[in-house]
Amino acid sequence: MDKRKTRILTGITTSGTPHLGNYVGAIRPAIAASRADSAESFYFLADLHSLIKAQDPARTQRSTLEIAASWLACGLDPQRVWFYRQSDIPEISELTWFLTCVAGKGILNRAHAYKAAVDKNRADGEDDDAGITAGLFMYPVLMAADILIFNANRVPVGRDQIQHIEMARDFGQRFNHIYGHEYFALPEALVDDDAATLSGLDGRKMSKSYNNTIPLFAPREQLKKLVFSMLTDSRAPGEAKDREGSPLFQLYKVFASTEETAAFAQAYADGIGWGDAKQRVFEVVDREIAPLRECYDDLMTRPQEIEAILRDGARRLRERYAMPFIAELREAVGLRDLSSANVAVEAKPEGAATDAPVPTFKQYREADGKFYFKLMEGDRLLLVSIGFDSPRDAGQRVAAMKEGALEGGEDFRLADGVSSDEVNAALARFVAAQLAQE
Amino acid sequence: MDKRKTRILTGITTSGTPHLGNYVGAIRPAIAASRADSAESFYFLADLHSLIKAQDPARTQRSTLEIAASWLACGLDPQRVWFYRQSDIPEISELTWFLTCVAGKGILNRAHAYKAAVDKNRADGEDDDAGITAGLFMYPVLMAADILIFNANRVPVGRDQIQHIEMARDFGQRFNHIYGHEYFALPEALVDDDAATLSGLDGRKMSKSYNNTIPLFAPREQLKKLVFSMLTDSRAPGEAKDREGSPLFQLYKVFASTEETAAFAQAYADGIGWGDAKQRVFEVVDREIAPLRECYDDLMTRPQEIEAILRDGARRLRERYAMPFIAELREAVGLRDLSSANVAVEAKPEGAATDAPVPTFKQYREADGKFYFKLMEGDRLLLVSIGFDSPRDAGQRVAAMKEGALEGGEDFRLADGVSSDEVNAALARFVAAQLAQE
Repeated sequence: MDKRKTRILTGITTSGTPHLGNYVGAIRPAIAASRADSAESFYFLADLHSLIKAQDPARTQRSTLEIAASWLACGLDPQRVWFYRQSDIPEISELTWFLTCVAGKGILNRAHAYKAAVDKNRADGEDDDAGITAGLFMYPVLMAADILIFNANRVPVGRDQIQHIEMARDFGQRFNHIYGHEYFALPEALVDDDAATLSGLDGRKMSKSYNNTIPLFAPREQLKKLVFSMLTDSRAPGEAKDREGSPLFQLYKVFASTEETAAFAQAYADGIGWGDAKQRVFEVVDREIAPLRECYDDLMTRPQEIEAILRDGARRLRERYAMPFIAELREAVGLRDLSSANVAVEAKPEGAATDAPVPTFKQYREADGKFYFKLMEGDRLLLVSIGFDSPRDAGQRVAAMKEGALEGGEDFRLADGVSSDEVNAALARFVAAQLAQE
Repeated sequence: MDKRKTRILTGITTSGTPHLGNYVGAIRPAIAASRADSAESFYFLADLHSLIKAQDPARTQRSTLEIAASWLACGLDPQRVWFYRQSDIPEISELTWFLTCVAGKGILNRAHAYKAAVDKNRADGEDDDAGITAGLFMYPVLMAADILIFNANRVPVGRDQIQHIEMARDFGQRFNHIYGHEYFALPEALVDDDAATLSGLDGRKMSKSYNNTIPLFAPREQLKKLVFSMLTDSRAPGEAKDREGSPLFQLYKVFASTEETAAFAQAYADGIGWGDAKQRVFEVVDREIAPLRECYDDLMTRPQEIEAILRDGARRLRERYAMPFIAELREAVGLRDLSSANVAVEAKPEGAATDAPVPTFKQYREADGKFYFKLMEGDRLLLVSIGFDSPRDAGQRVAAMKEGALEGGEDFRLADGVSSDEVNAALARFVAAQLAQE
């Protein structure tokens, strides 16, 4: 694979069972795109993300298996694209923390998914964050790590996910800025507004949250029953049917050729009975799905093969990209091999940090012919000495004070409103600053 | 090491240079405790935590080296205790995400450090979260992972950190509850209210945030200068000195024997000059520090040895605890080897989830002698059939509807306020529910 190709990264949620809507809206177009030679494609099972909601371990495992098998059955070629499981790349978890340390909390507050949860709590009269886990809140940071660990250039997402890509750009940019190098490419959202969507059994958008899906690899008889259970209106055979808003017609269209679709439109106009229409829809869907289903059923009898494919993908990907890149990032943030530390560069002693003002001494001669000194903190006078007969006497007293010794009090007077504690503290800073320069 | 021993875990911040206050308050007592046989002790350099604030990579590296060398020079024995660098245990980052997914965001909102930052923003008229990173916010979750990955029983902390231990308990408990097993022991804070604290050069508590520290391993001459720069009052030699609130006296006491302290108290009463007092303080401090400093200076010329010690500690610790435990936790949450999936247990088809009501058919005979059926959704009537002459006719129509076919409309009437769309959707759910049981 050529490093300079555009990198396209697709995350696959591992919750639920893939349904026809997932197939036509995501799986089918993604796999078609994966065959292009112009890009280097990354497909990963987002199982760490799934932990945010899914807390049924057997179901999580089962979902991951089904979804991996589905993508493979639909033609994803793990020798041609990177196909891996998120949790098999520990560098993603590590980068998540690095990004957490640069991500502004205020940005995360504005994430749509989090805000929606807060809004719902408010509507229910609950505390803003009632029942909300840190997982939901931190989801965009994990997602940024998914993308940035491979410096993906493009991320196909739905409109609702554009904001997360913006956040990934922001976190990547901050990291680049703080650590002074373009470690991360800034990803762009790839939104396909023409992506097919399907209506579910009840006429609403097919979605697992509506309980109205047709599982992609339902056995043939179940597929038939489900197609036959799809919502229609009550028009009798012989009455012309309306294509607009007909879930059946929509489903037919995404599986049929242009000619078939035209013929089916004609059948609608001619008043095809719903039973006949459903039969034709079932047949055209099954025509495409049946060979994939066979492959899926076969794969599902050999889960150890799927496991091996995923592990192999992760192993190769870690070696090629994730491990060397995280090593570079660790170096960037300062998690470094200690033997490479520059021991000659003394660290600044803590006492000498410069954000507290360091006082200065000024020596001068007054009109009385005597030699004086004063101690200033910026423009503020701290103390003035008595007049000394010689500059050497004044200098010796200054030298003693520079060692930190304020003792006595006979040969100087504190300025108005200045305590000896203050002067001592200022002298301590003076000493510390001197040490820092040694 | 015996698994059943109490496990004590101590995190060591890797920012800044260790100072005398760290030594007497933390390092010295911790190392004394590490020699006890009753506990299994874990000491780690919290370099992932340090990334929250430290964004100077060379300084981070340098700090880590200095602090590791300091603890070793002070007598920590890496063959007797676990001594490691947090970032060398990738299982900590992984567990951080698992815990993130169970941690309530509302709990994190109440963390003292985060609230203090918000309060400061409010006082400054800024947005609540201005300049606050997700790192500061998520700090308690990382800290919980530090503790829980080794199932530490006790965590020595200052009072300000008790809340974080409570949070670690909470997150651990939630995880145990959700995943139905006592994976995590619940840690307890070990607070030593008698821990020595020192005043810094300016009389305030010695702390790097006040820029008033005396570096633990300052060269002898610098140590002397710094001790001589410590805050005193202006009493002249011969005047009795006050021990109360005298940073010099306090410093002397933590390095001197009881007899020496008594003698020094007498010297204060007798009006020892500050210069003489400082000399005696310097000598008693240097007496203890000098051999450690020699060891430190020596270690600092061989950073590769320190690196090797830390790597070796992490390697052994991962093998013994972190890797097998994270494998168990991955299993717990469902990040499992797919070949162990129980393929026989069919996942419930999405369409059949039960939170939408599934309608029921009821067949009955009316006073007119005819056979009827009705479709109910819970207590709500959806439709009633016409009267059929035979139960067989009614049953056939029910069977057809059970396949999802509402078609026609001559042999039933919809109940008041019920649309055919609603009935179709209900029938779709019925079909899906049937499939789920097959």
